[in-house]
Amino acid sequence: MNPIVIEKTDQVSNILKEQQLDLWLVFVRETSAAGDPILPLIYGEMGLTWQSALLFTPNGEKLAILGRFEAETARQTTAYDRVIPYDEDIKPSLLQELERINPARIAVNYSEDDVLADGLTHGLYLKLKHLLAETPFADQLISAEQVISALRGRKSKTEVERIQAAIASTLEVFKSAFAWIKPGLREIEVAERMQAEVEQRGLDYAWPKTNNPAVNTGPDSPVGHNAPTDLVIQPGHLLHFDFGIKQDGYCADIQRIVYFLKPGETQPPEPVRKGFATVVRAIQAAYDAIQPGLPGIEVDRAARRVITEAGYPEYKYATGHQLGRLAHDGGALLGPAWARYGKTPFMPIETGQVYTIEPGLMVPGYGYIGLEEDILVTKSSAQYLSPPQTKLILI
Amino acid sequence: MNPIVIEKTDQVSNILKEQQLDLWLVFVRETSAAGDPILPLIYGEMGLTWQSALLFTPNGEKLAILGRFEAETARQTTAYDRVIPYDEDIKPSLLQELERINPARIAVNYSEDDVLADGLTHGLYLKLKHLLAETPFADQLISAEQVISALRGRKSKTEVERIQAAIASTLEVFKSAFAWIKPGLREIEVAERMQAEVEQRGLDYAWPKTNNPAVNTGPDSPVGHNAPTDLVIQPGHLLHFDFGIKQDGYCADIQRIVYFLKPGETQPPEPVRKGFATVVRAIQAAYDAIQPGLPGIEVDRAARRVITEAGYPEYKYATGHQLGRLAHDGGALLGPAWARYGKTPFMPIETGQVYTIEPGLMVPGYGYIGLEEDILVTKSSAQYLSPPQTKLILI
Repeated sequence: MNPIVIEKTDQVSNILKEQQLDLWLVFVRETSAAGDPILPLIYGEMGLTWQSALLFTPNGEKLAILGRFEAETARQTTAYDRVIPYDEDIKPSLLQELERINPARIAVNYSEDDVLADGLTHGLYLKLKHLLAETPFADQLISAEQVISALRGRKSKTEVERIQAAIASTLEVFKSAFAWIKPGLREIEVAERMQAEVEQRGLDYAWPKTNNPAVNTGPDSPVGHNAPTDLVIQPGHLLHFDFGIKQDGYCADIQRIVYFLKPGETQPPEPVRKGFATVVRAIQAAYDAIQPGLPGIEVDRAARRVITEAGYPEYKYATGHQLGRLAHDGGALLGPAWARYGKTPFMPIETGQVYTIEPGLMVPGYGYIGLEEDILVTKSSAQYLSPPQTKLILI
Repeated sequence: MNPIVIEKTDQVSNILKEQQLDLWLVFVRETSAAGDPILPLIYGEMGLTWQSALLFTPNGEKLAILGRFEAETARQTTAYDRVIPYDEDIKPSLLQELERINPARIAVNYSEDDVLADGLTHGLYLKLKHLLAETPFADQLISAEQVISALRGRKSKTEVERIQAAIASTLEVFKSAFAWIKPGLREIEVAERMQAEVEQRGLDYAWPKTNNPAVNTGPDSPVGHNAPTDLVIQPGHLLHFDFGIKQDGYCADIQRIVYFLKPGETQPPEPVRKGFATVVRAIQAAYDAIQPGLPGIEVDRAARRVITEAGYPEYKYATGHQLGRLAHDGGALLGPAWARYGKTPFMPIETGQVYTIEPGLMVPGYGYIGLEEDILVTKSSAQYLSPPQTKLILI
């Protein structure tokens, strides 16, 4: 029994009520070759081979119609009230249930903008239309993107626990690295040693290991989604990490900053201190701004203003993104009103969502300062899921 | 540089010429969250994040239009003549190339019947239609299922080598098992010990390890896609294995048969000998029947006839399926004209395809006999990719 599947399927009926939807229909086949990204949340990691339908109604019904040889596996999830096996053709059972539920609109998994809500392939969509031909249902298919966005966003108890566990492991690997990093090491050596620890712990990466961790030392390191280079850590460098572990299917995403003192220095130079304090204040400003119901753009603005008012150029990315099964889990964004973000900065923040907060700035001559903290949206504000870095680590 | 990607993209132009198609357009986005199953063959394992288009023409042009930050990765494949990066919007570059190529029809990746040719999600299909709105191209999208079926089916040199390597590893694990299996072991113990060897070799499974290997001892073991049970091997049992390793991304799929002599027996009893000889003959009949251009149903019929004419009930599955990146790689099938196989048994066998041949029968009182060999279709007939089992293994 997978607690995630129980908890997530239990959330669906309220979401459908809020959105005044009669039915959410998840239609899939041969998921081992091409899966729908929603399935790990509502069914688990097992395959569904023949055409299979998972049906959810606002009054809490949860039905699975699938090939007979997979019926026992579906029952064992204990998430579905009824498991309806078929032998030859899904059509009779599917039509029977649709006629009984008699929905005015049927939400299915397609979305032009959100890949995580776009699990229904076009050929399978056509297949579904053919199955429903000669019924009124064929013309009632609408996008389930809002259902999926709410369901992925509002983390269940176990989901929050797993994200916390991934964060804890990420911080442990950081802590260990802070004990051995020193001038003379190359970026790539630092990354490989941290990766060795991830793999020794049997853990996975929140994004591909080519740039996880990202490691940037000093003013000349290319910051972005770049792989670590052969640049060597030197006294007087800022060292920037962007690192996240995936554990039990859930991700952490954290940035940390170290400064390497030059001989004779007892504290970092003033530009470094000022830059670091500015980023810390920007994070706190975003954190303070978070409240359910507010669009993410407001939070982005609060953090971005701290950076620009301190005289730094604004960062060229969103202040924060959602975190979950993926490091960038989609949906509402703490971002600016830039075309490439579409409508996501205007979607409301909701209780139970997990976001990163990650402003940054360049300190010329020393390097990049970016911090990234992971937070949970509570009923009225926010809660750090990890102790934020508020002091420069000095080595 | 990935040789598979070079070889497979080089195959495309001939396939388009044969099918009289002007353009194959592979349109994807955020493939780390939801990939198209064709990408590992024509692009590799790297992600494509922003909307990306891979274009192939019958005169051999291969273009990649994608986000600038992924352009260098695309160039490094060396498979694309031109890599066209964009910063904000794919539309101008895509329309410019379409206008230049000016195709009458554009094949895109959707298929009602073949999941491996159905990589385009419905939301992304709508996005593409919107991108092409106000051009003649919006109404020229057709299914690329025949392109993909041909491309996946016709194995390149490196693909055949990798399948052969997976077969060799599978046979080595079998050989080792034949040295230690003995009466008294449970099915599940046999499976776990073989799996330990797979994992010690750092190899992967051609299908999930819950039933890989499938292990069936004696007349009471449930044969099918079942997990091994606690049934204990006894003298007088037939032991049936269905096992396949995945190595460097390519699969093997092989069945083998062992008989455990009873005290005093020097050879298996007559019903076991007859059953085994019948299955061996059925495999040879299928093998002899294979020739390019023939529909798979003819090969199925040749093997099936041997089984039924010897007085056994016919097996309830297809005689053989294609093998490649997946253990069941889709497309043309060596199968009977049963509704659930759709048109696949009527698709022609082609040079370069790899098939399994796997007839089977039950010997009451002793157990199940199924053999499975992997073969390559040559220019005029077929070639075994592994030495077929023609003698019962006696223990």
